[in-house]
Amino acid sequence: MELTEDELIAAIRRVLSGEVPGVRIGIGDDAAVTDAGGGWQVLTTDMLVEGVHFDRGLISPRDLGAKSIVVNVSDIAAMAASPRYALASLAVPAEIEAAWVIELYGGMRAACDEYALALVGGDTNRAEAVVISVTVVGEVAPGHAVTRSGARPGDLVVVTGSLGAAGGGFALSRAHPSKVAGALSTPWGRELLDALARPVARVGEGETLRQAGVTSMMDLSDGLAKDLSRLCLASGVGARVDLPKIPVSAALGPAAQLLGLDPLKLALSGGEDYELLATIDVTDLDRARRDLDQRFGVTLTDIGVIIEEGLVAVDAEGRESPLEPKGWDHFAAR
Amino acid sequence: MELTEDELIAAIRRVLSGEVPGVRIGIGDDAAVTDAGGGWQVLTTDMLVEGVHFDRGLISPRDLGAKSIVVNVSDIAAMAASPRYALASLAVPAEIEAAWVIELYGGMRAACDEYALALVGGDTNRAEAVVISVTVVGEVAPGHAVTRSGARPGDLVVVTGSLGAAGGGFALSRAHPSKVAGALSTPWGRELLDALARPVARVGEGETLRQAGVTSMMDLSDGLAKDLSRLCLASGVGARVDLPKIPVSAALGPAAQLLGLDPLKLALSGGEDYELLATIDVTDLDRARRDLDQRFGVTLTDIGVIIEEGLVAVDAEGRESPLEPKGWDHFAAR
Repeated sequence: MELTEDELIAAIRRVLSGEVPGVRIGIGDDAAVTDAGGGWQVLTTDMLVEGVHFDRGLISPRDLGAKSIVVNVSDIAAMAASPRYALASLAVPAEIEAAWVIELYGGMRAACDEYALALVGGDTNRAEAVVISVTVVGEVAPGHAVTRSGARPGDLVVVTGSLGAAGGGFALSRAHPSKVAGALSTPWGRELLDALARPVARVGEGETLRQAGVTSMMDLSDGLAKDLSRLCLASGVGARVDLPKIPVSAALGPAAQLLGLDPLKLALSGGEDYELLATIDVTDLDRARRDLDQRFGVTLTDIGVIIEEGLVAVDAEGRESPLEPKGWDHFAAR
Repeated sequence: MELTEDELIAAIRRVLSGEVPGVRIGIGDDAAVTDAGGGWQVLTTDMLVEGVHFDRGLISPRDLGAKSIVVNVSDIAAMAASPRYALASLAVPAEIEAAWVIELYGGMRAACDEYALALVGGDTNRAEAVVISVTVVGEVAPGHAVTRSGARPGDLVVVTGSLGAAGGGFALSRAHPSKVAGALSTPWGRELLDALARPVARVGEGETLRQAGVTSMMDLSDGLAKDLSRLCLASGVGARVDLPKIPVSAALGPAAQLLGLDPLKLALSGGEDYELLATIDVTDLDRARRDLDQRFGVTLTDIGVIIEEGLVAVDAEGRESPLEPKGWDHFAAR
């Protein structure tokens, strides 16, 4: 493929362009929004491919099933919507046992129960590698969906929770066993691996942030640097990020030492955090922060500001450098 | 895998069992039906895997894209619903050119335009083989969805159009070139290959059959014998099929001779016909037949009758034999 993922998506958008009755928000946001009955429905889909998104030897079928639901629920959450229904298509190699598949669906079921949606359909197939494709249908009150495109210069850039743990878990799970054997059973080791295998979708948090007045929102799946660049592109703005303010996962400290990694780099481009990235007027920040803390015990951190154009990182000494939108590209080798 | 596809689906249904508010029809029919706004929405998903459902060398990306939409629209049609929105997830190997992917989406777009739905979202990924997973959301007036489970003893079994052409196209496309070189450019050769590469979904026909009073309906994707057994299982009934009445595609004659195939066998178990299979009270048959013919020029053929239990085939001499539910199993080698 001679195009990057973002270039290909842009080309596909051109093929699919045009206004369509009933489509409120089309391709390019976390989820599409369409009319349904008298309300608005939110539609999103995500595919997990063995060898690209997961390694069957490193994640249990139960966690994998749950994760396939959660990553879609996270996209629904990023629109400030509520998940309602899921469909799951599955392709499995001949050698996979039925018990593995049933455990996978057990994990999907558990995640659906946790986030109050129902798995209502699917499709099972044969393939050389496991492929899981999940679609989630959500709902949102008319006019209440929060897109990526509402950020305005002067808005603060905020993120929920902390970043980089899943990226650390990925590095840890791929490191040579002899190097990390002891680490896997430490609290921080478990935390990093869990961040990767058992992500959490911020559904209530997304709705709370909408109520608090965020101007744009998306979920962080491909790393802060890349996803922020997408939000800025959609909004036609730029951003200035204070690197020291980025809430780097505390569990990354020991892992970084062991593996020679840079925690800040993992927080910027590790991917799979499934935290929410949003922009908000400075006058709304306190309320948003207080509500998130009181309702969910989740921290909201302001990490920068929306500017007219450009993506700039500012370090502890005040030195500016371009914030490279590097992160997870599904078309690049991991 | 030690289970057949149907056994695995049954196991998955047990994992996912339970009444859920808002879910009108869950797993096990052509599509799920859920509440949405004040109406009913219909949800279905189908995955096409390279090497299992298609061979990249034997179908153009445009046809493949269109087909990935049409097979889902067919499931919506089988509920007597109308398609509205589609989501498409795609995984492609590294060596695939962007032009191929863009052609694929062009085909999806063309099919969406033809069936009046909008492609509103998706996901692009890397994989070893091409995998296309499409979800279609449709709508139906509350109470108007036609399921597989309403067939009653005494109802006639009917099918739209003719059967077996796609199976013949499959056989033709896989035969040794030296054997079929001349056949590929004959009218019947083209017809068979087109049936496989460019299936048609019976959307208007499904709605017309509902209006005419069909008691159950499904689309024929895995072959008449297998799909009828599924309809009977869902309805808790059996069926008696008159083999000479089955509308075998006329184009199969010359192909059968050339390749030594049995046209009736292809009609029973070739799969991918995407015609509608339905059951109807004998008093409603004439109207259904007339309406389908007048509105769409499509033939409706009664091929048998619903009985209390068992699946029986009756040949031209009146001899009975069990109708083996053989057909396309995604877990069996093709």
